[in-house]
Amino acid sequence: MSWKPALPRLPILQWRRELKGQALVDDALAGVIVAVMIIPQSLAYALLAGLPPQAGLYASIVPTVLYALMGSSRVLAVGPVAVVSLMTAAAVGEFAQAHTAHYAEVALALALLSGLMLTVMGLLRLGFIANFLSHPVISGFVTASGLLIAASQLKTLLGVQAGGHNLPEMLAGVFAKWDQVQSLTMAVGLGTLLFLFAVRSRLKLTLRGLGLSPRAADLLSKLGPVAAIVVTTAAAAAFDWQGQGLKTVGHIPPGLPPFTLPSWDLALWGELALPALLISIVGFVESVSVGQSLAAKRRQRVDPDQELVALGAANIGAAFTGGFPVTGGFSRSVVNFDAGARTQLASVITAAGILLATLVLTPALLHLPQATLAAIIVVAVLTLVDFPILSRTWRYSRPDFLALVVTLVLTLLLGVEVGLVAGVTMSVALYLLRTSQPHIAEVGLVPGTEHFRNVRRHQVLTAPHMVSLRVDESLYFANARAIEDRINDTVARQPALRHVVLQCSAINDIDASALESLEAIDGRLRDAGLCLHLSEVKGPVMDRLERSDLLKHLSGRVFLTHYQALQQLAPELAGAALAEPPSQTPPTA
Amino acid sequence: MSWKPALPRLPILQWRRELKGQALVDDALAGVIVAVMIIPQSLAYALLAGLPPQAGLYASIVPTVLYALMGSSRVLAVGPVAVVSLMTAAAVGEFAQAHTAHYAEVALALALLSGLMLTVMGLLRLGFIANFLSHPVISGFVTASGLLIAASQLKTLLGVQAGGHNLPEMLAGVFAKWDQVQSLTMAVGLGTLLFLFAVRSRLKLTLRGLGLSPRAADLLSKLGPVAAIVVTTAAAAAFDWQGQGLKTVGHIPPGLPPFTLPSWDLALWGELALPALLISIVGFVESVSVGQSLAAKRRQRVDPDQELVALGAANIGAAFTGGFPVTGGFSRSVVNFDAGARTQLASVITAAGILLATLVLTPALLHLPQATLAAIIVVAVLTLVDFPILSRTWRYSRPDFLALVVTLVLTLLLGVEVGLVAGVTMSVALYLLRTSQPHIAEVGLVPGTEHFRNVRRHQVLTAPHMVSLRVDESLYFANARAIEDRINDTVARQPALRHVVLQCSAINDIDASALESLEAIDGRLRDAGLCLHLSEVKGPVMDRLERSDLLKHLSGRVFLTHYQALQQLAPELAGAALAEPPSQTPPTA
Repeated sequence: MSWKPALPRLPILQWRRELKGQALVDDALAGVIVAVMIIPQSLAYALLAGLPPQAGLYASIVPTVLYALMGSSRVLAVGPVAVVSLMTAAAVGEFAQAHTAHYAEVALALALLSGLMLTVMGLLRLGFIANFLSHPVISGFVTASGLLIAASQLKTLLGVQAGGHNLPEMLAGVFAKWDQVQSLTMAVGLGTLLFLFAVRSRLKLTLRGLGLSPRAADLLSKLGPVAAIVVTTAAAAAFDWQGQGLKTVGHIPPGLPPFTLPSWDLALWGELALPALLISIVGFVESVSVGQSLAAKRRQRVDPDQELVALGAANIGAAFTGGFPVTGGFSRSVVNFDAGARTQLASVITAAGILLATLVLTPALLHLPQATLAAIIVVAVLTLVDFPILSRTWRYSRPDFLALVVTLVLTLLLGVEVGLVAGVTMSVALYLLRTSQPHIAEVGLVPGTEHFRNVRRHQVLTAPHMVSLRVDESLYFANARAIEDRINDTVARQPALRHVVLQCSAINDIDASALESLEAIDGRLRDAGLCLHLSEVKGPVMDRLERSDLLKHLSGRVFLTHYQALQQLAPELAGAALAEPPSQTPPTA
Repeated sequence: MSWKPALPRLPILQWRRELKGQALVDDALAGVIVAVMIIPQSLAYALLAGLPPQAGLYASIVPTVLYALMGSSRVLAVGPVAVVSLMTAAAVGEFAQAHTAHYAEVALALALLSGLMLTVMGLLRLGFIANFLSHPVISGFVTASGLLIAASQLKTLLGVQAGGHNLPEMLAGVFAKWDQVQSLTMAVGLGTLLFLFAVRSRLKLTLRGLGLSPRAADLLSKLGPVAAIVVTTAAAAAFDWQGQGLKTVGHIPPGLPPFTLPSWDLALWGELALPALLISIVGFVESVSVGQSLAAKRRQRVDPDQELVALGAANIGAAFTGGFPVTGGFSRSVVNFDAGARTQLASVITAAGILLATLVLTPALLHLPQATLAAIIVVAVLTLVDFPILSRTWRYSRPDFLALVVTLVLTLLLGVEVGLVAGVTMSVALYLLRTSQPHIAEVGLVPGTEHFRNVRRHQVLTAPHMVSLRVDESLYFANARAIEDRINDTVARQPALRHVVLQCSAINDIDASALESLEAIDGRLRDAGLCLHLSEVKGPVMDRLERSDLLKHLSGRVFLTHYQALQQLAPELAGAALAEPPSQTPPTA
């Protein structure tokens, strides 16, 4: 267990040489398309995170460029994403009131902390920590997050004042205010929602029917949110909807991203540590899976340690330029890839486009209805909700199903942090439980061969004075005693027994606890007049056993093959086997 | 993962039939010997636990009988033991002042809670929970406990007032009061200590030199503590040492164990839950390992679930009869076994002997010096201290060594509960870390055979368009991504590659996360124009894969043997192999 720290690299030094001719054109086009697509998303996710809308734009400029310079993926697009924005709202909401200056400072501190954690994890090659988010836990968490985000937008879609930190509270809050629903807001919100669903489900087919190429139809149908913004903003301005009670984004100061300082309150940092860690890991997992999927399509590869450093830099960048936690997003990266991006130049152009928007477009957002943004969020996050995974997981594995349901339900009822931590704890506990009850088969000789099989499933030869046990698991503390128990049982039940042989072909490791158990078993067998033998011990396991005292005192011997053990300890069986003609059997157990 | 609850049995119904003739005599003799030996220990451990000395006697009567009726071990002797007494003092000391009525009530509540936990664990067959105390953690914990106990007795041996909850505090407390050392107390304490060490190291040999049988010499030498008590008590009474400042046990009310009610304060129960769980598990582990060692010598067996129920009953009994947490003790059980006990009748006779002592002997303890008891404790617990285990574990396994040292150091510095919890967390984390970095070997065909070996260690045949990877670990969430990374790497490095074959002979399980990883790998390989194949999938793993979608969409095939995969995918290698004469190779990998 020795780590070498990773040296951060600058992948830009590789791909800058490819920047010429068609690749340059491809990247420029993709960058512009992504910029147009993510402006509405960035505004919407900032509101979801409890921040002013421009924070979403700022978080898509410097962080995107920093990732572009350092990331190992060619096409990943980094910025605010739905789940991380929800987690930000949950974490920051513990310490500050949304839409206040202090809230923004805490969000910056969260981004800085998360950025530092990601960078350190990358430099120390600790990316494997993310592996402990099992797929069922991620599935349950992402589905629950999608439902929570959609529920949190209901109040904006309907124009009522309501709060709540979990699904029942949010739904109850909105239903309690049912009589205060603002009909104009509801019309804009639900209208946009219906329009976006229609675009998503129909427009692509219609455009292809009109003769567009699949790629162009696909990209155009992703501009639905932009169209919704343009139309509802224009209508709100033309008909003075604000005067009739519709909430809009309002005044956004145009200008460069500000230089901001996160909160340096160390007590606050301590309390933000767990949420920052969870945000880092969830963000990293989302980002690296998107990155790997897209890289594989072009036989490129993504280096997880380098990704950690690059995402860390992006988040540190967000902390100092008025942003909030960011990561590589699924939809924006897929659009970037589909639009033909070849290198991270596309992301740099995206960032430039968004910068341009913050300089000149922000006055146009004055009349943008918040209900429109809420509808955009709802349509975006409903793709996160995956109920079929429940039945698929149930069919495949009950323990995984349990971990999924626990994560899903606890996230909905008790929030994102409790849900995630409970899910991880549950998966680890279930894994330990499974490996602590190893499959131990008593095996016997298949007549006419040198192969051994489970006596319960096959017609095999055994001798009353020798038992052969095959353990289908590495031996470690949690299952060492199960093996002691099994051997104690076997010995107590078979009075004629003289030899116990452990076939070790499936044992990849024996830890110190299991070694002591083997020593205890050996001692007890010797006290009772029996011998313990081992067979088919793997090379690395044998190397370690030779550094212990077990082999010096072992009552029996270590055999290279199990058949050799049989030849020595029960030659009458080996003879019987040889008497019959050999037959072909596959070497699997 | 389905449990059947265990039905509690009464093993007495089996062994009562054996109670006749010589067995009856053997049991009676062993019972008397154990009673004499454990009276001093029981008094001493009660003081160690912060309770009045008679609590130790009470804890050796009803609990011992309850275990005798229900326990599955024939010779285990149950009562107060050193480590559990230390843990009791640590837990109860959080909530009450030692030697007060409230303290005793909290100790009873702890015994009751621990008894209920043990019983429930036994009925629900949850004994495997104890497996998570790995051997290195137990070793580190027991050694640290021995040192802590010995240090805690220094003040009594020297007659000073001092406190402290960890090793540095205890030592500093005593050294700070060095000028207040009571010379008479020190003389009695250190004198007893020297006497006991001499008895332990010399008496047995001397007695054997005088012609006694080894067994008799051994048993007699174990009566050292009784002799020390008789002599120092008589001297204290004769020379009025109490008048000169020596602290003695004092007045113990003679009589039956009282009927006591534990504290029913539910808030207190909540706070005692963790210590009670730790005490239950540590006690169970100590008890069951002693029980199993002794049972094996006579080819009997101990049923862990029944042991949990019996120890639970013993602790519940202790809670209602003025005792404190108890478990099966190492030294008393070994004495019982060596003295020839055949059945638990011996323990019943031991309990009767101690009952007799509480009725008639207690006045004789009025003058028993506390320093004598402290010396008895110190000599008893120094056998717990095992430093050679440090170097043995270092040689065998670095991660296990780390877990041992962490437990040892944290127990000494931060107390028994922190030490144990940190040790368990550490072992689990190190195990997960190890399995999350599985050994993955690229294998090739051994010429002239159908066997495959690691390409780095053997001269084997490979083809540029096919790679064979053998994963030496079950696939689960923590290592699923490592395998993705490895395959992504391999594919990115070998441009001619067309087929990836996973040899699954060492894979005992594939969880839902690993399944999704395999699906992701398969999808990426297909996108890049490659195929993923599996070979030598174990039966139970194949059964589950058939319930998933992986096999329906798999870009490649599933081969029964890896050689068949080679025959299909790289027939030129299989031909080359057949061209050479077959040679014998052992079937291990």
